[in-house]
Amino acid sequence: MKRESLPAQAATLVYAPSGTHVLADLSGIAAEKLSDCAALETLLRNAAEAAHAHVLFSHFHAFGEGQGVTGVVLLAESHITIHTWPERGFAAADIFMCGSAQPELALALIKKALQPQAAHVHTARRGPP
Amino acid sequence: MKRESLPAQAATLVYAPSGTHVLADLSGIAAEKLSDCAALETLLRNAAEAAHAHVLFSHFHAFGEGQGVTGVVLLAESHITIHTWPERGFAAADIFMCGSAQPELALALIKKALQPQAAHVHTARRGPP
Repeated sequence: MKRESLPAQAATLVYAPSGTHVLADLSGIAAEKLSDCAALETLLRNAAEAAHAHVLFSHFHAFGEGQGVTGVVLLAESHITIHTWPERGFAAADIFMCGSAQPELALALIKKALQPQAAHVHTARRGPP
Repeated sequence: MKRESLPAQAATLVYAPSGTHVLADLSGIAAEKLSDCAALETLLRNAAEAAHAHVLFSHFHAFGEGQGVTGVVLLAESHITIHTWPERGFAAADIFMCGSAQPELALALIKKALQPQAAHVHTARRGPP
């Protein structure tokens, strides 16, 4: 687990509160891709970088051999999370980014790696009124 | 920071992948409530328990004295996150729970503690097709 990666720059970056939140329900994924905790952590950290976001911290939890994984990458720009159910070939990913980061680039990398047969993607704008 | 709280029961709980994701944009909050990292971590852990969810882990990051906080509580049922901007009186909270947990009870506790003047709440159903 890569628990701490707090470059001084990212740890103090402050962005405006308006952002984009992408909720991606990904189905038809090979089970082995959804139970590999280390690979999913590396994937989501790489996805953050692909989106030009700054990683503060990550933590991933495996529910057991061959079972699902739940994990988070905290960003200076907000977060990426994933929750997986290998027995259903399903992953729920969230990509929430403020500032100039581009969540669609993170999602593209996640989809390229997990190769879902179907993706239901919902995008919400967040921020103060 | 309460980094590890992995009761053996919660660490291995497995829920069906269908769930409810509540996105709450909360505005008009007193700045001092949004920069207190320890209080926000306690609040979100208590909110998880109020919703009958099982906490796996939490991590909260303060961007600096009087500045915002970004944090996550990973749950056996998915997650709660919060990102705050005290200078704008704004917090973006996410409550994503599968199984029989009740995210609306978590949101009620968060709103009671933060006392936002306005709340824009969007609820999405998540899960396989």
